[in-house]
Amino acid sequence: MSRGGRSDVIPGRGPVREALAAGRELREIVVDRKVADATSDIAEQARAADIPVRQATRHEMDTLTGEVRHQGVLALAAPFAYAPLDQATDGDLVIVLDGVTDPRNLGAIARVAELAGAAALVIRDRRAAAPSPAAEKASAGALSWLPIIKVTNITRALESLSDAGLWTVGLEGGATTSIWDQPLLDERIALVIGEEGQGLSRLVAERVDARVTIPMAGHLDSLNASTAAAVATFEWCRRRVQTEV
Amino acid sequence: MSRGGRSDVIPGRGPVREALAAGRELREIVVDRKVADATSDIAEQARAADIPVRQATRHEMDTLTGEVRHQGVLALAAPFAYAPLDQATDGDLVIVLDGVTDPRNLGAIARVAELAGAAALVIRDRRAAAPSPAAEKASAGALSWLPIIKVTNITRALESLSDAGLWTVGLEGGATTSIWDQPLLDERIALVIGEEGQGLSRLVAERVDARVTIPMAGHLDSLNASTAAAVATFEWCRRRVQTEV
Repeated sequence: MSRGGRSDVIPGRGPVREALAAGRELREIVVDRKVADATSDIAEQARAADIPVRQATRHEMDTLTGEVRHQGVLALAAPFAYAPLDQATDGDLVIVLDGVTDPRNLGAIARVAELAGAAALVIRDRRAAAPSPAAEKASAGALSWLPIIKVTNITRALESLSDAGLWTVGLEGGATTSIWDQPLLDERIALVIGEEGQGLSRLVAERVDARVTIPMAGHLDSLNASTAAAVATFEWCRRRVQTEV
Repeated sequence: MSRGGRSDVIPGRGPVREALAAGRELREIVVDRKVADATSDIAEQARAADIPVRQATRHEMDTLTGEVRHQGVLALAAPFAYAPLDQATDGDLVIVLDGVTDPRNLGAIARVAELAGAAALVIRDRRAAAPSPAAEKASAGALSWLPIIKVTNITRALESLSDAGLWTVGLEGGATTSIWDQPLLDERIALVIGEEGQGLSRLVAERVDARVTIPMAGHLDSLNASTAAAVATFEWCRRRVQTEV
């Protein structure tokens, strides 16, 4: 979505409200003229920030967001601005995606990371989901707040994070240590989530300081990438809160 | 989806494999003739279970699953079979949805519940998501394993669960006790998840034994219903495992 002078499309009321609140560079807000009343707070906020507001038909808006529901509002934003890796290095918690491919999982994990107070989300530039209308929608605005860092090489990024004093912990179904028993979750960590289905890539699995699993009952194999990320991330949050006491 | 003699549609390789493994009543398996090789294990298993397998075009299959991706396989199943409430009453963990409306959230929460070893998932019959192709897909097969109980009145269902000795705990953004500090999570519980955006309905919020919140940092308001359910459900699992020691 971020090639040339084209705009990134942010669909949906929540995501557009957050983009405005975060001061993201927006070129235009488009509202469905039929629901303009229900979104008047957004139009007002946009005008206060000198962002043009245009009314359009539902059909025109559908064309801009594709399969993603826009609830009568979308923003056209400047191409997605990635953060440099050093924005992650002084954080206590960084989430690293080793190839998550579904943009809805990317968005959902960004939302989890933002709400857990993560310093940044690191994503891979190839064979991986990148910010898109579907990701923006699923992130509920998190992609407007959370620094997103795009790297070519996840293992190299993990080395930089290690050098900065973070422990690298990979979430993996086959790991023998549970997230509840791994002492590293008391520390500053980079939590690595693998690709849906495939899990961590071999090099990353070898590189991390520890691999942890979420103990499960039942017949199914594994949690979805975003629910697994949520469980592990908030286990880290729990330790933070409970050790502070 | 379960009206009259119509079939329920289960789209996707994982969901169809789980439906077969769970012994769900399937009327027919439909495979895209162009990817028949990649799904031959499914066809074989179906034939072994005397379930007819038919090849179709991708277009025909798209028509059956609507917006939901089928990955070249779908099953036509008997109308969804709900379980009676007493299948929940001797469980240690029951998940109750007080009006989750997005079928993908329903599916994702069923997946969480199945993997946490919940006895059942209770859903509301009105203004709420019900099993559908989107829910089946997001559940990754959980809807084939987990007993789903549909009730007219959530508060009344909670009373039955209370009578059976379960504590009722509602997840609510505004609650003052954190999931990490609530002692009831050491016990047999019915965990109640509210509607996306709205949260618990007033009567349910008043009825539960305790309300708990997931402490959050960041700018956004709340986690998505399925990630919140995952965090709370696996906090219950953690206590189980760590108190057993």
